Amino acid sequence: MKKINIGLIGLGVIGRGVLRILSQKRKFFKKRYNVDFNIAKVCDKNPKLRKKLNLSPKIFTTKFQEVINNDNINVVIELIGGINPARDIVLRSLNSGKSVITANKALLAQDLLSILKVASRNKSRIRFEASVCGGIPIIKSLREGLSADRIDSLIGIINGTSNYILSKMTGEGCSFFEALLEAKKRGFAERNPSLDIKGFDSAHKLSILAFLAFGKHVLQKDIFVKGIDEISPLDIKYARELGLVIKLLAIAKKSNKNVLEVRVHPTLISEDHLLASVGGVFNAVYVKGELVDDLLFFGKGAGQLPTVSAILSDLIDLSYEKKSIDLFQKGLIKKIKKIDDIRSKYYIRFMVIDKPGVLAKISGILARRKISIASVTQKERQRAKIVPVVMLTHDVRGRDIRVALEEIDRLAIIKKKTVVIHREEL
Amino acid sequence: MKKINIGLIGLGVIGRGVLRILSQKRKFFKKRYNVDFNIAKVCDKNPKLRKKLNLSPKIFTTKFQEVINNDNINVVIELIGGINPARDIVLRSLNSGKSVITANKALLAQDLLSILKVASRNKSRIRFEASVCGGIPIIKSLREGLSADRIDSLIGIINGTSNYILSKMTGEGCSFFEALLEAKKRGFAERNPSLDIKGFDSAHKLSILAFLAFGKHVLQKDIFVKGIDEISPLDIKYARELGLVIKLLAIAKKSNKNVLEVRVHPTLISEDHLLASVGGVFNAVYVKGELVDDLLFFGKGAGQLPTVSAILSDLIDLSYEKKSIDLFQKGLIKKIKKIDDIRSKYYIRFMVIDKPGVLAKISGILARRKISIASVTQKERQRAKIVPVVMLTHDVRGRDIRVALEEIDRLAIIKKKTVVIHREEL
Repeated sequence: MKKINIGLIGLGVIGRGVLRILSQKRKFFKKRYNVDFNIAKVCDKNPKLRKKLNLSPKIFTTKFQEVINNDNINVVIELIGGINPARDIVLRSLNSGKSVITANKALLAQDLLSILKVASRNKSRIRFEASVCGGIPIIKSLREGLSADRIDSLIGIINGTSNYILSKMTGEGCSFFEALLEAKKRGFAERNPSLDIKGFDSAHKLSILAFLAFGKHVLQKDIFVKGIDEISPLDIKYARELGLVIKLLAIAKKSNKNVLEVRVHPTLISEDHLLASVGGVFNAVYVKGELVDDLLFFGKGAGQLPTVSAILSDLIDLSYEKKSIDLFQKGLIKKIKKIDDIRSKYYIRFMVIDKPGVLAKISGILARRKISIASVTQKERQRAKIVPVVMLTHDVRGRDIRVALEEIDRLAIIKKKTVVIHREEL
Repeated sequence: MKKINIGLIGLGVIGRGVLRILSQKRKFFKKRYNVDFNIAKVCDKNPKLRKKLNLSPKIFTTKFQEVINNDNINVVIELIGGINPARDIVLRSLNSGKSVITANKALLAQDLLSILKVASRNKSRIRFEASVCGGIPIIKSLREGLSADRIDSLIGIINGTSNYILSKMTGEGCSFFEALLEAKKRGFAERNPSLDIKGFDSAHKLSILAFLAFGKHVLQKDIFVKGIDEISPLDIKYARELGLVIKLLAIAKKSNKNVLEVRVHPTLISEDHLLASVGGVFNAVYVKGELVDDLLFFGKGAGQLPTVSAILSDLIDLSYEKKSIDLFQKGLIKKIKKIDDIRSKYYIRFMVIDKPGVLAKISGILARRKISIASVTQKERQRAKIVPVVMLTHDVRGRDIRVALEEIDRLAIIKKKTVVIHREEL
């Protein structure tokens, strides 16, 4: 029977889960896959964890060097997160011919290409199913399940915290801050939730997914990112009246053969679309391929056990000594489109003084920018003499809508910064 | 560059699709995966296809023996369907060390174990992603993506024809036959649709999925199968009034550690469940694992291009010389539960004479069988003096409900055979 010696670095919630489940299932894996997964070294910078987790001093260390310099170790599982020293751990492990499993989306989003180059140069292997969407096997599906296809678009709800907050606001009409508070109480939001609610966590994951789907590594700076912290219950309500739901979507799609759009922002979609039914902390990824057409993958995007499942499936894969499919796609994508150049539909809410001629002024400016309007509704008055006016546009260029709204917001009839939200017909 | 010589047997819609897409993408695959997929032999019993498809006489044959006895061929793609001579083709190819790709669900449902044994004995490989759910990578996900987990239950909408018919009946209130006619017109139902609408196609696929999920090969005779041909618009309407939707579900779930339930039947589920939103010809598989919890896979379950995508992804997998994960799970399942012993919730519609005391008689018989009732509603009269009475039960044993309804249907107050439909709380 083959024996795999594992070095596990990082004993947070996920690391402890790997430790526990691997020892629980060691027998099962022997029987099922004819391989013995042996935890050879465990590392965490907190020395107290050794006693707390009842680990032998031979196995436990506080120095990651003792793991990555250990010649007996075949697979390093990196679960400390962040860029440093995680990058060092990953690169040095790959350099010494070890296989690496990581759940580190921030690191991959930044350094995917250089990491893959080091792996390729050393004929070592890296796996990262757990970095995106927890237990959903989306990486394997894109890389292997759809290996014969070309992807046209990929649209995901890939941040559970944001989706929980939006679902709660939609279901109960509460404010963003009330929903965030509840998310924190229930352990669905971190104490500092800004990575999640500002959209950057989604952007990290989208960078990884877009690479697998389109063969292009898109850096953070080339991804348009907008979070959910400015979404108000008012817009959720007006959206519902239009049969629409607001979701934080991560979108990567080809505008044509070699131009890609990559963006994360709150988006209005039809309440009939399957993505609209993805509630709470769940994640989902919608993929459209030339051959497969529409596919949806849905599941728990985070949490200890789903993430452990992803890590262990990578481990089992590695034990089967597959040659990795070469991740260096000779991608066709030559260009990432800027948000100013992307055509999209929009929802706009103006807060205007309730008097005749207001709409004429606004639509005059929009017309000059060639912004074509699909519908206009004047809503019930909010406060003395201020009424919300909700507009849906047809497809318009990002730059045009931006410049038009800057101009409109300078008018005296506008009493509050105009709200603008992307809209997608999926 | 590695060259793979392919023998393609069966030139129906899928076979022609493989031929076309493989030649279109040959260059792309060379560049992307560094492998040359060469169609060495093409076989169909219809000799006219050679000219029609413009195939060279060197490549085309009407005799499958010329494919499977050809030593140059590495991979045989079997796409003729049915048991004979497909089984012969598959077994003899595996016996001679060739790899086999098949989409033949009927064959696999019947002979999966013996086929796998032959493959294992000869160290040859068999792949069958296309046999279930077209372009959805469900086989790979169960086999590899969830390799570390144990599955508790698997529930699928895995027959597009039936789902189209039920969706149409639900959306438009039309009859089964009207919906079937429309399905035939639009090419979603075959001329003889009985395999689909009677549930046997779903049972074939369920047999394959259950093997992957639970390591137990369940034969057709051990699967309870009921089709959709007796579903009436009346029950769809009453179900909706209860917030329920009727779907043809294929269900495999563990009752406990080593007992499995495997069944296909129309089922009432909550309209809020994600499976209820799977409309038209789409397929979906809902999986619940100990670690991953809920997962859903959704997509086109049939059609030329999605199926070709599945076949070609198998081909690319094989070209990467992965060792196959041994499919012989040392399964824990010792027993398949009979429908009589399965506990389930039910929807029951009685057609009774509209007079006092009727309900007392019915509920008396149900009570004696210990069938606990969750709700009773008397509906508007249908015809002179006949009223529908709709009951929802709590969990009851199959045998109890069967025997009770046999007894009730003999009563003079019952004017039509009682309708009974399974109900699941997912």
